[in-house]
Amino acid sequence: MIGKEVKKELRAIVGDGRYLDNKEDLMLYSYDAFMVQAQPEVVLLPITTEEVSKIMKVASRERIPVTARGAGTNLTGGSVPTQGGIVLCFTKMNKILDIDKENRVAVLQPGVVNMEFQKELTKYGLYYPPDPGSMAVTTMGGNVAENAGGPRAVKYGVTKDYLLGLEVVLASGQILHTGGKTIKNVTGYNLTQLFCGSEGTLGLITEITLKLLPLPESRRTLQAAYKNLSDAGQTVVKVLERGILPVALELLDKVFINIIEDYTHIGLPREAEALLLIEVDGPEAGVIDQAERLTKLCREMGAHEIKVAKTAEENEEIWRARRSAYGAEARLRPTAIAEDCTVPVTKLVDMFQEVAKIARKYNLLIPIVAHAGDGNLHPQILTDIRNKEEMERVVKAIDEISIKAVELGGTLTGEHGIGIAKREILPYEIGEVAMEITRTLKKAFDPFNILNPDKVVRIV
Amino acid sequence: MIGKEVKKELRAIVGDGRYLDNKEDLMLYSYDAFMVQAQPEVVLLPITTEEVSKIMKVASRERIPVTARGAGTNLTGGSVPTQGGIVLCFTKMNKILDIDKENRVAVLQPGVVNMEFQKELTKYGLYYPPDPGSMAVTTMGGNVAENAGGPRAVKYGVTKDYLLGLEVVLASGQILHTGGKTIKNVTGYNLTQLFCGSEGTLGLITEITLKLLPLPESRRTLQAAYKNLSDAGQTVVKVLERGILPVALELLDKVFINIIEDYTHIGLPREAEALLLIEVDGPEAGVIDQAERLTKLCREMGAHEIKVAKTAEENEEIWRARRSAYGAEARLRPTAIAEDCTVPVTKLVDMFQEVAKIARKYNLLIPIVAHAGDGNLHPQILTDIRNKEEMERVVKAIDEISIKAVELGGTLTGEHGIGIAKREILPYEIGEVAMEITRTLKKAFDPFNILNPDKVVRIV
Repeated sequence: MIGKEVKKELRAIVGDGRYLDNKEDLMLYSYDAFMVQAQPEVVLLPITTEEVSKIMKVASRERIPVTARGAGTNLTGGSVPTQGGIVLCFTKMNKILDIDKENRVAVLQPGVVNMEFQKELTKYGLYYPPDPGSMAVTTMGGNVAENAGGPRAVKYGVTKDYLLGLEVVLASGQILHTGGKTIKNVTGYNLTQLFCGSEGTLGLITEITLKLLPLPESRRTLQAAYKNLSDAGQTVVKVLERGILPVALELLDKVFINIIEDYTHIGLPREAEALLLIEVDGPEAGVIDQAERLTKLCREMGAHEIKVAKTAEENEEIWRARRSAYGAEARLRPTAIAEDCTVPVTKLVDMFQEVAKIARKYNLLIPIVAHAGDGNLHPQILTDIRNKEEMERVVKAIDEISIKAVELGGTLTGEHGIGIAKREILPYEIGEVAMEITRTLKKAFDPFNILNPDKVVRIV
Repeated sequence: MIGKEVKKELRAIVGDGRYLDNKEDLMLYSYDAFMVQAQPEVVLLPITTEEVSKIMKVASRERIPVTARGAGTNLTGGSVPTQGGIVLCFTKMNKILDIDKENRVAVLQPGVVNMEFQKELTKYGLYYPPDPGSMAVTTMGGNVAENAGGPRAVKYGVTKDYLLGLEVVLASGQILHTGGKTIKNVTGYNLTQLFCGSEGTLGLITEITLKLLPLPESRRTLQAAYKNLSDAGQTVVKVLERGILPVALELLDKVFINIIEDYTHIGLPREAEALLLIEVDGPEAGVIDQAERLTKLCREMGAHEIKVAKTAEENEEIWRARRSAYGAEARLRPTAIAEDCTVPVTKLVDMFQEVAKIARKYNLLIPIVAHAGDGNLHPQILTDIRNKEEMERVVKAIDEISIKAVELGGTLTGEHGIGIAKREILPYEIGEVAMEITRTLKKAFDPFNILNPDKVVRIV
C-alpha cells in the first residue's frame, strides 16, 4: 500500500492533471488484451524523462511496484499491475522528436502510436516496416518493450532490427543512454537489445532511436486459394526456396476464411482449405516480375483460384480480409485468445495438424491465421472467459500448443512475449542455465523487484 | 602461473596434439592485428563443446585467464592474452553443422571461415551478407564476438542482424543455449545479442545459428570519380535521400587512389579527390534501372568519370581497387593502424576534413577509406611501430579522431570493437551509468574476471 504522504509526493511530481487514483480510472488501467485483471493504486502519466526518473527514485526508496503501459494492447498480461502499485502510462510522451531524412534515423518518445509514426514517415519517403496487428493504436515504447513483429517480418524483420539506441530510466531512477544513431556501433556491450523485449522488467524506455528504410517504390499483393492445406504449406516453402523474399506471406485456414466471409461478404472462396496472401515490394520492374513468378508457382503447387492486385486499391482489398480476422472472430464467441508460437516453415503444416488435434481433444474452436513466411502461427482460441470449465480446457490446450511448437524446433512465443501467460513454461524452452542468467540479470537491474514484477520471471 | 599439475589436467582434456606450450607456439599466439603483444602460458585447441566446458571448469577453479581466439585478425587487441594464462583457439571447431535451405538457417561451429561459409552457401542459392575486410581468413566465432561489419552493411546490416541463436560456454563451464532457429522469437531476454560484440568477455561461443537470405539475382557496380571530395560526400547523402539502398557505398580519398594505383596500375583516375564505388543488387530489371539512375545522379553531382560494370568480371575489376587498399598501403610504411569511427552520413565530409586537420597537426600520413553509406570511416594511420616518438603522436591522433567522431554524433568504433585499443575512452561515449552496468554485467557473467580480462572494461 502506498502511504498518503508518498501519494502526495508522486502527485507533486506530475501535477494534478496527470495523477489518477479514483476508482473508475484505476479500473480502466487494470487490464490489457490478456485475460488477467489487477488494479493499480495510482496511475501516473509523465511527460518528461525527468519526471520518470523522479518517480522511480520514490518507487525505489519505497519499494513500490511500477508497471509501464502504453496503449494496453499486450496479449500476455505484460501491462497488468499484478502487484498493484504504480501504473506508469506513457501515452502523453507522444512526440516524434526528429525525423532525419538524410541519415534515415528517427527519434521518438515512447507514447508515439506506430501507425501515426508510419504515416508521418511517408511524407519523407521513408519507411519503418514493423506492423503488429495492433499498429493502429499500439505505442512504440510497447513495441520496443515487447519486440513487436507483424506480417512484414518475413522480409524486414522485427522491432529489434530497427532499434539503434534508447534512453532508459533504471529502477534506481538513473538515466541510461544506449547505442546511437549509426547502423554500425560496437562501442561496448549491446545494452540496447537487452532492453528490447524485456517487457518493462529491466528499465523504462523514455526515448527511442530507430533506423529507417527508403519507402519501397512499388508493391503488389496476390491471393491464392487451395483445396488442400498442405499444398499451401508447400507453396510457402517453395517461395523461399526459389529465392523470392516476399514482404509478407500469410495463411488463413478454412474456419477463418468462412468466419471472415460471413462478416465481410468480400467474396472469399468458402470451399478453400487455405488462403495464402503474398506481398512483394521493391522497384516496379522487379515487383511485376516477382508477382508473375509467384502466380505461376502457386498454380503449379495446386492453387485453384489466384487473384493478383493491379492497383493500390486492389492491394488494400486483398489485405482487408486478413485485417478483418479479429473483428470477425469476435462475433462467434465472447473471448478470443491469440496464441503465438513459431515453428520452422517446413514444420508449418505439421503444426497446423497438431493444433487441429489439440482442438479436437479439448473440444475447442481454434481457427488459425499464420505469418506463414516466418513460421509464426496465431491459433485463435475462441471461448468464453466466464465459462470456468471451458477455460480449464483452454489453458491445457494453450500449454500443449506451445510445447508442441518447441518440440518441432520452434519457440513458445514469436511476437506476443512471455508476460504472465507463458511465464511458467518459459524454462521448458530456454532451460535452467538460461533461467539462472535471466534471474541474475533481473536482480542486477532491479534489485528490489519493483519493475513489472511477476512478468517474464518470478523473483522470490 | 599455471602449475604443472593443472597443465597436465588441461593437456588430458584436449590430448597431446591440441595442447601447445613450446616457446615458438606461444609466440605465434601472442598477437593479433593490433600493436600489443603478450604471451599465453598454454594454447588449447578444443574440438567439442564438452572440452571447452571442461577447460572452463578448471580455469574457473584455478582462476586462470582465458582468451578466445579465431584467426587473430582482431584490430583492437581483443585476442591478445594480456594476462597470460590460456589461449583457447577455436580454429579446429570448423564444421558447418547444417545448411537448411528451406528454412534459410545455418548452424556453424565458431572456427568456420567467413568466406568458406559464403562459398558453400552459394551452392544452395543462399546468402550471408556480412563481409568484413578479413573475410578470407576470419572465423565466424570472431565475427560474432566482435559483431563484424563490412561494406554490405548499408543495405544488409552487420553480423548481429543475422544471429538467431548461440551455444555459449560460461565462465563456470556451464553450457548455455540462447535463441533458436526462427526469425521471430521473444521467449525471454535477448541473451543472444548480449554475447554478440562482447569480445569474449562474457562467454565462449561454441555454436552459431544464423539467418540466411536468398542469393540476389543480379548485382551491378559503378565507380565514380570526383575532383571535389564534398561533391562525393553529397552524392552519398543524395543516393540515400532518393530512396536507393545500395548494397555498398564506398569512398576512397586522393591519397588512397594514388597508393592503390601505384601498386596495381589498374588505371584509377589519379587526379580525382575522391572515388565512389556503388553496388546495387536485386532482381535483374530493378538493378539495371537503379544503375542508370545512379549514373545520372553521380553526373549531376559533379563526377567527371563514371564506369559501370556490365558483367560479373567488370564488377570484380572495380572491387579489386578497393580490396587492394590494405596491400597497397603496406608498401609505404611498415605499420598501418586501421581507425574505425562512425558518423552520420551527413557529417562524412566534415569528418574527412577533421581527420586531415589532425593528420597535419601531428605530421602523419592518414589516407581514408570509408564505408561511406553507413558513415563508417577507416582512416589508415601509416607509421612505424618501432619509432617511439612517432607512435606517441599516433596515439594522440587516434584519440582525437575518435573523440571528434563522437562529437559529430557518431561512435568510437563501428566494427572493430573496443578491445584494449579504445578501453580508456569508452566512458567518453557511453557515460558513467552505462559503464556501471557494463561492470555489473561483466561481474555477473564472469565473477573471477577470467574471460578475456583487460578487454572492453577493466575490472579492479
